[in-house]
Amino acid sequence: MRFDIITVLPALLESPFAHSILQRAQKKGIAEIVVHNLRDYATNKQKSVDDYQYGGGSGMVMSIEPFAACIEKLQAEREYDEIIFMSPDGVTLNQTTANELSGKKNIIILCGHYKGIDQRIRDVFVTREISVGDYVLSGGELPAAIVVDAVVRLIPGVLNDETSALSDSFQGELLDAPIYTRPADWRGHKVPDVLLSGHEAKINEWRHDEALQRTKTRRPDLLE
Amino acid sequence: MRFDIITVLPALLESPFAHSILQRAQKKGIAEIVVHNLRDYATNKQKSVDDYQYGGGSGMVMSIEPFAACIEKLQAEREYDEIIFMSPDGVTLNQTTANELSGKKNIIILCGHYKGIDQRIRDVFVTREISVGDYVLSGGELPAAIVVDAVVRLIPGVLNDETSALSDSFQGELLDAPIYTRPADWRGHKVPDVLLSGHEAKINEWRHDEALQRTKTRRPDLLE
Repeated sequence: MRFDIITVLPALLESPFAHSILQRAQKKGIAEIVVHNLRDYATNKQKSVDDYQYGGGSGMVMSIEPFAACIEKLQAEREYDEIIFMSPDGVTLNQTTANELSGKKNIIILCGHYKGIDQRIRDVFVTREISVGDYVLSGGELPAAIVVDAVVRLIPGVLNDETSALSDSFQGELLDAPIYTRPADWRGHKVPDVLLSGHEAKINEWRHDEALQRTKTRRPDLLE
Repeated sequence: MRFDIITVLPALLESPFAHSILQRAQKKGIAEIVVHNLRDYATNKQKSVDDYQYGGGSGMVMSIEPFAACIEKLQAEREYDEIIFMSPDGVTLNQTTANELSGKKNIIILCGHYKGIDQRIRDVFVTREISVGDYVLSGGELPAAIVVDAVVRLIPGVLNDETSALSDSFQGELLDAPIYTRPADWRGHKVPDVLLSGHEAKINEWRHDEALQRTKTRRPDLLE
């Protein structure tokens, strides 16, 4: 699977893609993540990629031409399943979307910055607009990293222990039960006896009850 | 405002905090962002920070002692308003929470990894659990970066143009209206005439109508 990310701040994305699971997925050749500097596609002398907005108002707007040039260059090299624009106006990312995207082959992600991007980029090129949540961020770079992380870890072969991904919160319908490791007693705070019992059926029952209880308390909407 | 982020992957967070608005906020002395390597607080020879989970099951659990040692060292240096654990089980981040956190002085953020963290860390130290959305990620590092970005940009003096933050989607109750910049005609795709009219009242009316329409279509829940 290949991600092409187009941004004015390629350096911001250096470290998130160079460590942990995303690094491993790239080393294994399972995922390819290419970050493109939008400024390389600026058509004017000043290498500017933004301009004042029509109709007035504060904030700069990212121009259509550099995005068009970069997208069309990529499209000439291979076919893309999706061109995603990271935007607070988009459909909120959830695990179902991440699962769906993990089955795709080539995806372009556009990162907005400043006040936003020219609407015509969205009208002409974008196939899907995704938001990572109802909050305002400085740009689409961290959201793009979130999408790549959520998707790549679902590709078979990326995680060492596949059952670990399957038992995560949101892959099932319940939040996780509490988990514990050594020491069994830390300053008087003890691990629940059942987990030390070695009685597998009782442990599973306890975990299911705790997961259900936590979900009921914290996220009743997941049970509806 | 100061953020102390505790993680096993400090390098992953290098570039997100070194650019753009977060870099500017730190240079101006408005925000201090300190990343701590949890492994520096490991108490055993192997510098391990995780262990098998009680009761069996795949995935490693982050131990209580290294977190306790790091948190207690920080608490001896200054008072903290919040100790936040990034978790899919937490309360979903929204702009109201970001606004609230931007008024705090010192915040610790704990990043989980592997299967999760010992429940007693949450019971004993954590004051608030925050999720950035209903999706599974490799760790709490990107979510921590999201929280820092969403919060820091709200601190007065961080953004150059404060009205720009106030008119963002979610700071008001509506999504943004479409925005456009030059050229007025791109391969036949034209900027709406009203935006070229210079008629401020008409432009404001158009923007409000478009924002309302977009919100109705995409996020009717925001209007409820």
